[in-house]
Amino acid sequence: MKDKFYTYIQELQDTITSQLEEVDGKAKFQEDIWKRPEGGGGRTRVIENGNVFEKGGVNISGVHGELPKSMQSYFGVEDADFFACGLSLVLHPKNPMVPTVHANWRYFEMYDKQGNIVDQWFGGGQDLTPYYLFEEDAIHFHSVCKKACDAHHSEFYSKYKKRCDEYFWNAHRNEARGLGGLFFDYCKATPAMKMQDWYNFITEVGDSFIEAYVPIVTERKHIDFNPLQREWQEIRRGRYVEFNLVHDKGTLFGLRTNGRIESILMSLPPHVQWRYDHHPKEGSEEARLLEVLQHPKEWV
Amino acid sequence: MKDKFYTYIQELQDTITSQLEEVDGKAKFQEDIWKRPEGGGGRTRVIENGNVFEKGGVNISGVHGELPKSMQSYFGVEDADFFACGLSLVLHPKNPMVPTVHANWRYFEMYDKQGNIVDQWFGGGQDLTPYYLFEEDAIHFHSVCKKACDAHHSEFYSKYKKRCDEYFWNAHRNEARGLGGLFFDYCKATPAMKMQDWYNFITEVGDSFIEAYVPIVTERKHIDFNPLQREWQEIRRGRYVEFNLVHDKGTLFGLRTNGRIESILMSLPPHVQWRYDHHPKEGSEEARLLEVLQHPKEWV
Repeated sequence: MKDKFYTYIQELQDTITSQLEEVDGKAKFQEDIWKRPEGGGGRTRVIENGNVFEKGGVNISGVHGELPKSMQSYFGVEDADFFACGLSLVLHPKNPMVPTVHANWRYFEMYDKQGNIVDQWFGGGQDLTPYYLFEEDAIHFHSVCKKACDAHHSEFYSKYKKRCDEYFWNAHRNEARGLGGLFFDYCKATPAMKMQDWYNFITEVGDSFIEAYVPIVTERKHIDFNPLQREWQEIRRGRYVEFNLVHDKGTLFGLRTNGRIESILMSLPPHVQWRYDHHPKEGSEEARLLEVLQHPKEWV
Repeated sequence: MKDKFYTYIQELQDTITSQLEEVDGKAKFQEDIWKRPEGGGGRTRVIENGNVFEKGGVNISGVHGELPKSMQSYFGVEDADFFACGLSLVLHPKNPMVPTVHANWRYFEMYDKQGNIVDQWFGGGQDLTPYYLFEEDAIHFHSVCKKACDAHHSEFYSKYKKRCDEYFWNAHRNEARGLGGLFFDYCKATPAMKMQDWYNFITEVGDSFIEAYVPIVTERKHIDFNPLQREWQEIRRGRYVEFNLVHDKGTLFGLRTNGRIESILMSLPPHVQWRYDHHPKEGSEEARLLEVLQHPKEWV
């Protein structure tokens, strides 16, 4: 399973980066291959200063070895070995009319000291963070998520959509990071869903990413915007930074377990602003977005 | 003691804000008075878009009531009441040749259910975060810190300078946030230092702030800078954000105990950049700063 899934994310990285380069039309992903001293490594691909993408990364990694102390207490296990691999992506477009997107698909195995698998699970999801609200974009993104889910279980979409809203909640701001999508974790074998079934599910979600995001980019990338709209985008990006550095378990985990910092923090936006006590004007487009972030809704 | 110290920080806030307005020559501090529903409140003063200060705050607060659950486990106590007050300031200058500064002076009392004081302590410090290294500025700042310490104990400066270097360590970057200064906490009564002695010490440090910082601002605020230097400042400000949101106990504490978000996050810089895998050129002024941040040194 681990080899099959690692092969899958390698191919998915190729597909996604080549599709995004085509949409961008100018910038190319720059690749960094890195090794983890304790075992494994990754292939980081970063795009900067494109026509469409101001900054973004589509990264894969596969790491293994002894489970770090911090992860032992996190998982409530003693000495164990592990293997973890995944694809993580974040794209920050230049145009505030084009939403930021994040996605992650990952697989984890834990072994006893004899090398037997004692636990294994999939996790992941994808979610959209716009700066201006185009309801049809939210509906499109969520519809694609739902279609990928419905092929595997009638309740997956509603369950993982809800988890996504809960996970990407910027608690100290009392608002969502974005419009959500899917979030799932610890997807383990059950009588009804074997690991192969989970594999089929997660790869279907992975395969749906381009369909979920690229049509939105194509539709919005040519819309004109003014400096005030750009400013709003940079202020909202500040909230993205706050979520990732204060609340995001994946980011904090990476920072605390001595992950590759530059690959982890590629998620941070290129230009960001913080204003004191900033509030959009009542009745404005900016206030309309905020309203939806404060009260997550059903899109499909 | 609590009334005396609260009166002191009120007056210190007035002194500092009026001195800083004079240095700035353009922007004025805007004041927000806020109440904490559970008891107490604060006076937030923020300056934005000045000649010198792009963004900054000089805030006081005095809060009291039942010790929140999260603080109970933090301090290892059960039901208790508390009083906490302090002055916190952060100033982000526009000109990258002028350093950012942070300072905080605070007092804490804990009570049993009969209202008796069961514990009390002072804490605080002040530290400098430049974007370009002027060694004479570091020496000046640390000399003023040392002078304030030496009047109270011959070992305070070396002890609290070291604690400052340790506290403001951006562990995931393996570098200091800035050039340090002083950091002390849990300053409690001992046979050698009564609470009044600690009061004398902390107010001497508080009184030294203007002398420690303002001459540096006056000296550097007229130096010309170019867009590349400004860019470097914005990238370094990213590290400041990373420290405050990932490592700073005070910030995280405020966010988790439902503090006033806008007063807590006034510490975040106005314009910030994140680049992928950014490194200054070997032998450059930027690399010289980094070298000192990676290897904190003795300035006096």
